[in-house]
Amino acid sequence: MTSATQPAGDRETRSALSRTLVISELLDKATAIFAEKGYETTTLQDIANALGVSRSALYHYVSSKEDLLTMLVEQVSQGLAEVLEELARRQDLSAPHKLASVVSLMVRQRAEHPDQFRILDRSETVLPEPARSQHLAARRKVLRELVSVIAAGTEAGEFRRVDPRTTALSVLGMCNWVAWWFRPGSDVEPVVTTVTDLVAAMLAADGEPARNAEASQTIDEIRALLDRLDRR
Amino acid sequence: MTSATQPAGDRETRSALSRTLVISELLDKATAIFAEKGYETTTLQDIANALGVSRSALYHYVSSKEDLLTMLVEQVSQGLAEVLEELARRQDLSAPHKLASVVSLMVRQRAEHPDQFRILDRSETVLPEPARSQHLAARRKVLRELVSVIAAGTEAGEFRRVDPRTTALSVLGMCNWVAWWFRPGSDVEPVVTTVTDLVAAMLAADGEPARNAEASQTIDEIRALLDRLDRR
Repeated sequence: MTSATQPAGDRETRSALSRTLVISELLDKATAIFAEKGYETTTLQDIANALGVSRSALYHYVSSKEDLLTMLVEQVSQGLAEVLEELARRQDLSAPHKLASVVSLMVRQRAEHPDQFRILDRSETVLPEPARSQHLAARRKVLRELVSVIAAGTEAGEFRRVDPRTTALSVLGMCNWVAWWFRPGSDVEPVVTTVTDLVAAMLAADGEPARNAEASQTIDEIRALLDRLDRR
Repeated sequence: MTSATQPAGDRETRSALSRTLVISELLDKATAIFAEKGYETTTLQDIANALGVSRSALYHYVSSKEDLLTMLVEQVSQGLAEVLEELARRQDLSAPHKLASVVSLMVRQRAEHPDQFRILDRSETVLPEPARSQHLAARRKVLRELVSVIAAGTEAGEFRRVDPRTTALSVLGMCNWVAWWFRPGSDVEPVVTTVTDLVAAMLAADGEPARNAEASQTIDEIRALLDRLDRR
């Protein structure tokens, strides 16, 4: 409402950006405290203390602990669902390319903000409405898009024949589990590279045996040719 | 103590077996209630009600909620660690065989008793000692054995070159995640088969390109032979 009456400009962009950065830091700090003390026993005062701000300054961004969970749902689950939907629509990208993009995005998010993902995952039963419904809808959307990328790749011969649903859920398991084992502060890139490579290998089309069969056929034809030459 | 003074016999075996069965059912029922009501708010009376027994009958097996977590640690984490240790020691099995055994065992356990795994995983911070230390030690052992199976397979050329630690953690992620997505009552076997196959493909040695190179060489040799024949 307010922004509609103000002239759009650099100041507004900067303020939107700084709000995003503040929220990102806020979520990191809040989820770290939830992870340490438990969600139930953490108060907004604890979070204000950890951020080094007054409780009233914190109220500028969140009015309750539930608010923080709602922000997490928007940032983590819905954010991923939107990116995946956008990727899935792209006609210019192959299924292996799409899958690699999703995997590296997820692994990076889980490695860089492990507590955000863990708290959200462990708080599913206490999520306030409508955040809970939004979270579950986003999770279903992520699975649906991933299944359809795998099914399309299988159809196009870009992936080998696999059960798309169990495979999509296995890929999600590999990526999500990173939030439980990645050591904060260590290098994210080798993990992103390895997991992306493992997923690609898991689904690599059986191109090699096909090419082998082709080679065997060529050898047979040449052999027949040699026999003919030999007989002359 | 008591059993040492009693003659060993069928009755004792039967009673040990029925105790195991009772404990397995007890853990399934208890973890289902923890999952529904939350660990903190569940009472032993709730569990007795769900089992249809009196509280004093329940006290015959467990004296507290913490006791149940300790039993879960023994059954779920330590059980897996022991099986893996035994498998790893086997000289007669290949690394791919060992890995397939572990994966199918884990997937089956997570699918058949999802709440047992989930409650244990989510209660890590509230586990009473010494169960907590035992649980963490068992988790470390499982990772260590899995890493060493993958490293040995890579060394022997049975697996392609991968980072053993990230790969082991990715395999654990795929298997553990089953506890969060498997629909109770649906068929376990197709899931076991698919996940085991995905893990095998992820690590399959690069045998196919090697055979292709061999085929190309054969074709080159034949081509040279044809040239010679042609020149005659």
